[in-house]
Amino acid sequence: MVYLTRVEHFNAAHRLFNPGWTRERNEAVFGKCANENWHGHNYELFVTIKGAPDADTGFLFDVKKLSGIIRDHVIEKLDHRNLNMDVDFMQGRMCSTENLAIGIWQQLQPHLPADVHLHCIKLYETPRIYVEYFG
Amino acid sequence: MVYLTRVEHFNAAHRLFNPGWTRERNEAVFGKCANENWHGHNYELFVTIKGAPDADTGFLFDVKKLSGIIRDHVIEKLDHRNLNMDVDFMQGRMCSTENLAIGIWQQLQPHLPADVHLHCIKLYETPRIYVEYFG
Amino acid sequence: MVYLTRVEHFNAAHRLFNPGWTRERNEAVFGKCANENWHGHNYELFVTIKGAPDADTGFLFDVKKLSGIIRDHVIEKLDHRNLNMDVDFMQGRMCSTENLAIGIWQQLQPHLPADVHLHCIKLYETPRIYVEYFG
Amino acid sequence: MVYLTRVEHFNAAHRLFNPGWTRERNEAVFGKCANENWHGHNYELFVTIKGAPDADTGFLFDVKKLSGIIRDHVIEKLDHRNLNMDVDFMQGRMCSTENLAIGIWQQLQPHLPADVHLHCIKLYETPRIYVEYFG
Amino acid sequence: MVYLTRVEHFNAAHRLFNPGWTRERNEAVFGKCANENWHGHNYELFVTIKGAPDADTGFLFDVKKLSGIIRDHVIEKLDHRNLNMDVDFMQGRMCSTENLAIGIWQQLQPHLPADVHLHCIKLYETPRIYVEYFG
Amino acid sequence: MVYLTRVEHFNAAHRLFNPGWTRERNEAVFGKCANENWHGHNYELFVTIKGAPDADTGFLFDVKKLSGIIRDHVIEKLDHRNLNMDVDFMQGRMCSTENLAIGIWQQLQPHLPADVHLHCIKLYETPRIYVEYFG
Repeated sequence: MVYLTRVEHFNAAHRLFNPGWTRERNEAVFGKCANENWHGHNYELFVTIKGAPDADTGFLFDVKKLSGIIRDHVIEKLDHRNLNMDVDFMQGRMCSTENLAIGIWQQLQPHLPADVHLHCIKLYETPRIYVEYFG
Repeated sequence: MVYLTRVEHFNAAHRLFNPGWTRERNEAVFGKCANENWHGHNYELFVTIKGAPDADTGFLFDVKKLSGIIRDHVIEKLDHRNLNMDVDFMQGRMCSTENLAIGIWQQLQPHLPADVHLHCIKLYETPRIYVEYFG
Repeated sequence: MVYLTRVEHFNAAHRLFNPGWTRERNEAVFGKCANENWHGHNYELFVTIKGAPDADTGFLFDVKKLSGIIRDHVIEKLDHRNLNMDVDFMQGRMCSTENLAIGIWQQLQPHLPADVHLHCIKLYETPRIYVEYFG
Repeated sequence: MVYLTRVEHFNAAHRLFNPGWTRERNEAVFGKCANENWHGHNYELFVTIKGAPDADTGFLFDVKKLSGIIRDHVIEKLDHRNLNMDVDFMQGRMCSTENLAIGIWQQLQPHLPADVHLHCIKLYETPRIYVEYFG
Repeated sequence: MVYLTRVEHFNAAHRLFNPGWTRERNEAVFGKCANENWHGHNYELFVTIKGAPDADTGFLFDVKKLSGIIRDHVIEKLDHRNLNMDVDFMQGRMCSTENLAIGIWQQLQPHLPADVHLHCIKLYETPRIYVEYFG
Repeated sequence: MVYLTRVEHFNAAHRLFNPGWTRERNEAVFGKCANENWHGHNYELFVTIKGAPDADTGFLFDVKKLSGIIRDHVIEKLDHRNLNMDVDFMQGRMCSTENLAIGIWQQLQPHLPADVHLHCIKLYETPRIYVEYFG
């Protein structure tokens, strides 16, 4: 068993805001992150898959194909977007880094071949904050 | 003459949009960066000052004071903000990294002591794009 | 289950020296690290917690609160200190990175809420050496 | 139980090429990576060992000794080499990062003391691609 | 005047070898870098241009266009190549990082618009060695 | 003219303390940096030289020789040392990063060949603070 990780990048706007709460409670809980005019981040996304290397290629999976799958099904939906407004799979969810990592897992998994197992989504929101989700 | 640099960080939303242009022209020129629902970045800000070290302290300038000035006059205005909507010194300017670096220079310079010379504002918009302004 | 990591920073002096050994044996085992006049490092501290995201906030735990707990109970005791002389929880222990990581775990764990589980302390001593402790 | 990681660096040339395939099939599968005149990388190697810290030293294992073992048995064989042509332990294997990580594990393990357990070989091929192998 | 930098990446094989010298002299001067079977690197390329921001766009120059010019005229020729054998503009030159930076400048400059001035080519050969060329 | 930079690393203890001042004034000016039991840093040192590449080697200067000169005359004196107590060229000077960069320049310059010009000493004290000195 070997683990292979590909790192991708996207930029997005978001805010932390619970629509079931008053503005005051949102500001009390989320502080500056509740700014109604949004803020944003450069997200670094680490996608890790696991499996056995193929005898003919030495590859667990072709990293260019992995990169293509991530771009088509995740980056295309998130890059230069507003996470709260523009992203179908985040509708009705709080746009925390925790939920975004879970959402990215759910987007990616159906598009990987049967013999490739998604192991981890690691998502940096800032250089000092990241989340990992293992399914 | 010695040069001292302090690195600070802020997150913000923005969009590239010229209000004097049609939506079509904005999209043709700025592409995804014109998204009307905004996107955002983790900005890394490098502030470089120059001068002679003080004989008693060995300091060109106390880096904690420099950090405080940057935070009070720049980071406070930019962090977790919308550059187009929330930032007084970017009103009426295109929110490019070039103009943001120039704006940060103009914000900082009046607040530095007379014997400390601002040398450079270096601003990373993404890990692969940065701007430098020397006044 | 989701894992959330916060990165913090501190600077400290230390030396590797076993008081039960002769100076010669200390120098033979620890080399330059035994320098009686100390040396020091910029330590990078990664604190990882695990749990389920809250439905109302999307947070496993508010990262600002996590940062505050780390600062109050760990950084405050270590930053700009001498690990051998100034730090209560390292008294009577060798000041290796291994023991420092274990000590930081013991400092932090009692101050986290009951539903937040400390998962890992990762501590960089230099950019090329780090230790991980999982309790 | 504590985990200690040492990071080392080497540069090498390689190509991805299956000698049992035609040139056309190699190019179809490996693209630019099959270039018959080679290409190369700066590899970053993370070696993680696990065990209990020694009471007298505070060390899981002396990191300078670990570095020396890695250099003698791995870096010496790989640095400034052609992975396909110059490296005994890669003969007859595809020179993928997956296989190189497995080969490095096999090289290192016999040279570690009995009470030190090799935990992980993590190998960056580029800043955006890495492999992990846990034995 | 503002300076804008775009960072690009390529991987390549090379060797340091003066064909006018004996093998012994090449090995004496270049050591492991003369390995006849090649070695290689992940190169990081920083391209800096200077000029005045445009009033309508806020851009010194569209960074996507800059990236496209670098890719078409530099990366396409260097990525996954052998610098000594495959690269037209390095024929007859020693493949040092110094000469490669000069060669990249000469490749790029004719393809930039008249009002954009190439300021610096900065090229990392390893994380600890880089060259800058200002024309 | 080409510029070549080599990056080296050292760890050291220091404190900021003016012996001509009272303890109270030292603490008022230097805060935690005046801790009488010292603190320390991982310093990153960037040494930049300038000149013309040699026609036969393509080198401005052999980077391995440059590294050797830096190690012999600078790193050997600073690594795992106490800057205030152990370093001859810092005696009688405040141990600020500004003065340390100037001291390193003075140590290195006499040991470089006549046709190699020292251009810049850049010294990181922490990942967010650095000093540059150009002679």
